[in-house]
Amino acid sequence: MSLDNSWKGIDRHGMLLAFDEAQNSYQQGGIPIGSVLLVQDPTESDGYKILGSGHNERIQKSSATLHGEISALENAGRLRAEIYRKATIIPRVVIGENTTFMGGEVLLQQSGVEVVVQDRQDCKDLMQKFISEKPGEWNEDIGEVADRD
Amino acid sequence: MSLDNSWKGIDRHGMLLAFDEAQNSYQQGGIPIGSVLLVQDPTESDGYKILGSGHNERIQKSSATLHGEISALENAGRLRAEIYRKATIIPRVVIGENTTFMGGEVLLQQSGVEVVVQDRQDCKDLMQKFISEKPGEWNEDIGEVADRD
Repeated sequence: MSLDNSWKGIDRHGMLLAFDEAQNSYQQGGIPIGSVLLVQDPTESDGYKILGSGHNERIQKSSATLHGEISALENAGRLRAEIYRKATIIPRVVIGENTTFMGGEVLLQQSGVEVVVQDRQDCKDLMQKFISEKPGEWNEDIGEVADRD
Repeated sequence: MSLDNSWKGIDRHGMLLAFDEAQNSYQQGGIPIGSVLLVQDPTESDGYKILGSGHNERIQKSSATLHGEISALENAGRLRAEIYRKATIIPRVVIGENTTFMGGEVLLQQSGVEVVVQDRQDCKDLMQKFISEKPGEWNEDIGEVADRD
């Protein structure tokens, strides 16, 4: 799927907010992954509306399920199906970088989800810093068998 | 994948606990779907250990993410990857019934997950009762566009 031009500026804004969430998580001692759920909205001055944002809470809340994206969805509360259907991160996913770790991108694309990778250096730097400091926490997060830090 | 005989009795016990969770949720006014996370454990008298259980909390907690299975995973806390890898509901999933609604069974099987469907009438009856009472809540749960109750 090709990138709709109307998303470009919105994606840049959205990623700044997601990165801010990631930095907050890092400062709390947590895994630095943030996420934002948003929709295009022409009635808003910037053309979009943030529905929810969040970050990985696995360390902070000892939670097995609160990865970054789930936190954003959870913080957005219960929304109608027609809203999810037009929202980033549902039919389209924007990723800061996937050099450090490749997730389910291929599976998403095979299911018709638009995947945009921004390949940002600041995202790589933050994640590499975390991994070098807490390799066991990272390995647990990605499901690798390893001792905790 | 064929069903390992050693799971049969465990699956029956596990489903009773999941069904009890579903009934609890129904009594709270919620969606009657329950789930249990368990592993085989020869040191336990029944040959298994319950790691966590839960039920759908979408109505009770206005949560967009706490479906039955996620609640069970969340209630189990953070576990090591080697434990998830041998647990029902990770590499194998046992389903009370899927006549009322077919979920991602085919996708799971394509990914190598063993799927067992027990086709239980008590599960069908409980779900049908809920759907007839709260069709809007059900439609929201399965992502259909419809008015809430």
